Amino acid sequence: MIAMSHFTYRPARDELAYTFGGRLPVAHVRSGDLITVHTEDCFGGLVRGPADLPSQVCQMPYLNPVSGPFFVEDAEPGDTLAVHLLSIEPARDWGVSATFPYFGALTSTSHTATLQPPLDERVWVYGIDRHAGVVRYRATASDHMVELPLDPMIGTIGVAPAAMESRSTIVPDYYGGNLDTPELRAGTTLYLGVNVHGAILALGDGHARQGHGEVCGVGVEIATVTTLAVEVIKGTDTAWPHLETDTAIMSVGCARPLEDAYRMAHQDLTGWTVDLCGLHTLDAYQLISQAGRAPIGNVCDPNYTVLAAIDKALLPQRQAAYRDAHARLRALAAVQG
Amino acid sequence: MIAMSHFTYRPARDELAYTFGGRLPVAHVRSGDLITVHTEDCFGGLVRGPADLPSQVCQMPYLNPVSGPFFVEDAEPGDTLAVHLLSIEPARDWGVSATFPYFGALTSTSHTATLQPPLDERVWVYGIDRHAGVVRYRATASDHMVELPLDPMIGTIGVAPAAMESRSTIVPDYYGGNLDTPELRAGTTLYLGVNVHGAILALGDGHARQGHGEVCGVGVEIATVTTLAVEVIKGTDTAWPHLETDTAIMSVGCARPLEDAYRMAHQDLTGWTVDLCGLHTLDAYQLISQAGRAPIGNVCDPNYTVLAAIDKALLPQRQAAYRDAHARLRALAAVQG
Amino acid sequence: MIAMSHFTYRPARDELAYTFGGRLPVAHVRSGDLITVHTEDCFGGLVRGPADLPSQVCQMPYLNPVSGPFFVEDAEPGDTLAVHLLSIEPARDWGVSATFPYFGALTSTSHTATLQPPLDERVWVYGIDRHAGVVRYRATASDHMVELPLDPMIGTIGVAPAAMESRSTIVPDYYGGNLDTPELRAGTTLYLGVNVHGAILALGDGHARQGHGEVCGVGVEIATVTTLAVEVIKGTDTAWPHLETDTAIMSVGCARPLEDAYRMAHQDLTGWTVDLCGLHTLDAYQLISQAGRAPIGNVCDPNYTVLAAIDKALLPQRQAAYRDAHARLRALAAVQG
Amino acid sequence: MIAMSHFTYRPARDELAYTFGGRLPVAHVRSGDLITVHTEDCFGGLVRGPADLPSQVCQMPYLNPVSGPFFVEDAEPGDTLAVHLLSIEPARDWGVSATFPYFGALTSTSHTATLQPPLDERVWVYGIDRHAGVVRYRATASDHMVELPLDPMIGTIGVAPAAMESRSTIVPDYYGGNLDTPELRAGTTLYLGVNVHGAILALGDGHARQGHGEVCGVGVEIATVTTLAVEVIKGTDTAWPHLETDTAIMSVGCARPLEDAYRMAHQDLTGWTVDLCGLHTLDAYQLISQAGRAPIGNVCDPNYTVLAAIDKALLPQRQAAYRDAHARLRALAAVQG
Repeated sequence: MIAMSHFTYRPARDELAYTFGGRLPVAHVRSGDLITVHTEDCFGGLVRGPADLPSQVCQMPYLNPVSGPFFVEDAEPGDTLAVHLLSIEPARDWGVSATFPYFGALTSTSHTATLQPPLDERVWVYGIDRHAGVVRYRATASDHMVELPLDPMIGTIGVAPAAMESRSTIVPDYYGGNLDTPELRAGTTLYLGVNVHGAILALGDGHARQGHGEVCGVGVEIATVTTLAVEVIKGTDTAWPHLETDTAIMSVGCARPLEDAYRMAHQDLTGWTVDLCGLHTLDAYQLISQAGRAPIGNVCDPNYTVLAAIDKALLPQRQAAYRDAHARLRALAAVQG
Repeated sequence: MIAMSHFTYRPARDELAYTFGGRLPVAHVRSGDLITVHTEDCFGGLVRGPADLPSQVCQMPYLNPVSGPFFVEDAEPGDTLAVHLLSIEPARDWGVSATFPYFGALTSTSHTATLQPPLDERVWVYGIDRHAGVVRYRATASDHMVELPLDPMIGTIGVAPAAMESRSTIVPDYYGGNLDTPELRAGTTLYLGVNVHGAILALGDGHARQGHGEVCGVGVEIATVTTLAVEVIKGTDTAWPHLETDTAIMSVGCARPLEDAYRMAHQDLTGWTVDLCGLHTLDAYQLISQAGRAPIGNVCDPNYTVLAAIDKALLPQRQAAYRDAHARLRALAAVQG
Repeated sequence: MIAMSHFTYRPARDELAYTFGGRLPVAHVRSGDLITVHTEDCFGGLVRGPADLPSQVCQMPYLNPVSGPFFVEDAEPGDTLAVHLLSIEPARDWGVSATFPYFGALTSTSHTATLQPPLDERVWVYGIDRHAGVVRYRATASDHMVELPLDPMIGTIGVAPAAMESRSTIVPDYYGGNLDTPELRAGTTLYLGVNVHGAILALGDGHARQGHGEVCGVGVEIATVTTLAVEVIKGTDTAWPHLETDTAIMSVGCARPLEDAYRMAHQDLTGWTVDLCGLHTLDAYQLISQAGRAPIGNVCDPNYTVLAAIDKALLPQRQAAYRDAHARLRALAAVQG
Repeated sequence: MIAMSHFTYRPARDELAYTFGGRLPVAHVRSGDLITVHTEDCFGGLVRGPADLPSQVCQMPYLNPVSGPFFVEDAEPGDTLAVHLLSIEPARDWGVSATFPYFGALTSTSHTATLQPPLDERVWVYGIDRHAGVVRYRATASDHMVELPLDPMIGTIGVAPAAMESRSTIVPDYYGGNLDTPELRAGTTLYLGVNVHGAILALGDGHARQGHGEVCGVGVEIATVTTLAVEVIKGTDTAWPHLETDTAIMSVGCARPLEDAYRMAHQDLTGWTVDLCGLHTLDAYQLISQAGRAPIGNVCDPNYTVLAAIDKALLPQRQAAYRDAHARLRALAAVQG
């Protein structure tokens, strides 16, 4: 495969999308294409300092915008779309985080509803130094400052859902969406089942970094310039998002309660391992039990996200996943990058 | 108020809808109108006997069809739509229930995922005797037969969601949908917040009856002829579905885990009681703690449903809810019925 | 069976117990005995007015005292203890309820932990009129007063756990304990599996009434004079608490999340129905799905409680549960009462 | 501090304990003592090959034995016990894992109850090579073999609970117990609040390694020879288990559903950070949100376990935790080791 083309998409503000599904594509792409996409942050760039309280400067449902969607040629229901993240560059030298009323894991929320008043709403502005590879945290009510490793990720990426649904970009689910996992960094390939003609891919919500679970509900939110390579894997279905890196394969589960997300991811990874390697189901279950990792994505969004991961080196002589799409797109990236 | 008109809607098979939102209206109605709607059962009428296994005769996502949607004139975001259920008549002399692979509360499911094989899929056909007011259960693997009270309800009723979403009719949420509670029987008024211009109301999924939680995932599913009266309450918002009968008010919570649905319903009912009666929040919380009922709707759908109910007679001298819409629509029904 | 004896137990304050298990019996009883037990309220009687804030007048772990335990002769592991509630009389003409910091369903708690401050702690005093059969609610911050039906229940009743455990009386689980369900009223028979030599039965925590789920965490707490009849069912095991009334059988599930309590109760009731009636498992599942009730007990204790109930009249010609112990103890009660 | 003494405890089979609390101590130890403890595996060493099915060779409640308990002199309620793990040596050259009926995350269980039959019960025997530092996985139904890193941990360690309770060693909770986290490896200091006179410390259930969440319910179970150093921190309370390594501090949450364990751990870590560093609560919340890790311990035991961790280097100039007990015990270990 060689790159067919490399195009850049930079949406105007009123071209931003707020759903997966229910939206016409902005461009067509093909297997082997590179796409450079400018993405806004989850606040649409409107939160720039301590005085910009999100609940005041943002208006529901205009939160968590994505860029796109893109129509992927030859992608049909029953196929899988492979999306390789070549690079995720912060578009500005700052990022923001915040507490948001009744959102986050350590507060009552609209769903874990109580009679208590909300936590204070507050904004943190982070300096981002791409050359030093750091994100600068600064406390708001004391003088603590500390540098954290820059580890850019795409928080929200997905295709149109099935069943004629259109879903808010706040939601993570089987079609991707607001997965909010740091594993979606440059070098990772994401596999999503195609639900509609053309797949209808969109992305946004970059984070300069986030902790496990995004406990306050908000990462270090950034605009990005992100470059992707896409490939359609014909005739191969994917029920839940799969990730592949040079060293590991991962399944994503999105659900509440959190143990259901854990169960889904591990059941899926067990089945995927069986399919790839021919292990007996209980042997795969056992191997993952002792060698698996389970990084938590988010514990704040409408569905929580947990991943199940296993190192490829631990699996038997195996066929490559998705006919080696990860290696192929990685090579393509190397050439084009 | 007098009834402005009474019209009947009977969809052809290919006019059935499978989403809330994302669908153009089939008719316009106005406050005070009576609407008689023919609804299909959750299987689209395709499961008629033991050999009609749902997973074979039905095709995703063509499950749980609704009739409509209807555009309600003068309904705008920020208003509330009151829907009074005048009558729910079984359209046939039979109903069906079933086990469905990986669906229901006493099986692993797509979300509570395990490595176990599914339960057997099986169909139960119930005789419905409207004159006797009974539903006849017959065991499939022994000779037990017993009559249960006929208690018709609408399982799925809702308006278009907010945030440009379109949701499968399988889902219950703040806009209504697949609430699956027996409290939605004739004589009840349902209040739904309007999210989009025209509200866009639809309904279906009648049950001849169901137990608390619909534990196997399927009620006694029937086609119905259902008559509604609607009224727009201008300038009054409703966050979560409210129900009113002659004797009680109820709030609906839809969420997973089940305690979150319980919390939502009770927090909402506490706040509604405060708004209606002027009680202090903690006094309302206390009264509901000792006198509240919490009927479980479903423990099988994508969101579980719990209601919180309080008898009106226990509340202080109070303003009527929604400017007495329930009484007004009830009277209208009496005249027209 | 005739009553072997009728004795009364009234503990001194320092004889109250705070665990199931780990405690020596205060008396021996036999099958057919009637026992009249004086029980204190959950606050040990120390909360008597608005100024008696529970967190100040009570001291952990001296909450939720039970009277007993009683050694039941001939009760061995593998047997079942039937406990019929003959009468539950309020011992005083008042009861109390309260909010308690970080306890209850509409607040963050020690387990659903957030960074928010607690709700205000407040006490409600209820008048109890046994002759009128009412409980008088009075608001604390407005002038609302209303009478609620008196419906006395025992909140906490159980035997010693298995596995050499000793559990706080705050906890409900398979051995009974803080079940907090209104179904434990006079006329009900409770069946508990025996885990240790002598069963070691204790009870307390009467409520003049409570709503479904005990949403604020506290019922209308009362001291009681409660009369029981006990019988050992030899050679019959009981995994989770069973209840029987003249018209229904019920299984109790205790767990978090709440759906697990629901699942446990319904799986248990399905199995119990199969055992009693010889129905196929899926036929029992189906019948309960359409005719079952699922009253919520508590959504505040360390385990939540949900019951699954089915009317006896709906089941096929059946052997009586537990060799007809309910009828036998009911008759005994009639004679002795 | 210098080591006061170093003694070794090796229990005979009938000296093994199966509860925390409710058990007399086997020895007295003092702050600064080193203790070398022989621990059995979770099956009491009875599962040694594929034919030794745990449900057949083991008998409830004689599972998950611990060695001890030890009375720690001068430990009183309100103090904290610091336990530093110097070394955890596998006692044999093999370990075992298994599926166990209705136990584990990818099966229905006694609590997530369904009507499905259990998964097959099966045993895996692992070779352990201490010199090579590997654990050898071998599939049972194909010829796959792979070496995993040896990473010995103590699965179960705790003190007697409060409130006169005695708890099965299967349970993890605030007093420790069956925490099942790989973070309890050599080099880690565990802090536990003291609930009773003498603390009453016990431990067992070594794993040669385990994956995140111990998904099948069983790690690579081993007998160990484990060396500890203990110190009583007077006058400092600890609500939930704390861990400290050379580089990080961690809080442990134990609860169901899994998000509650996550919430507890993160609320605790936020508060601990505030106490240690003087950060504003929301600033600590924010820093943990972006830099925290949340390793899942178990998703199979009666309570699930999640940890919240933050690197010490990211915190402001700070007082050492627990008066620098970790460094002191680490130094002691270096001298004695």
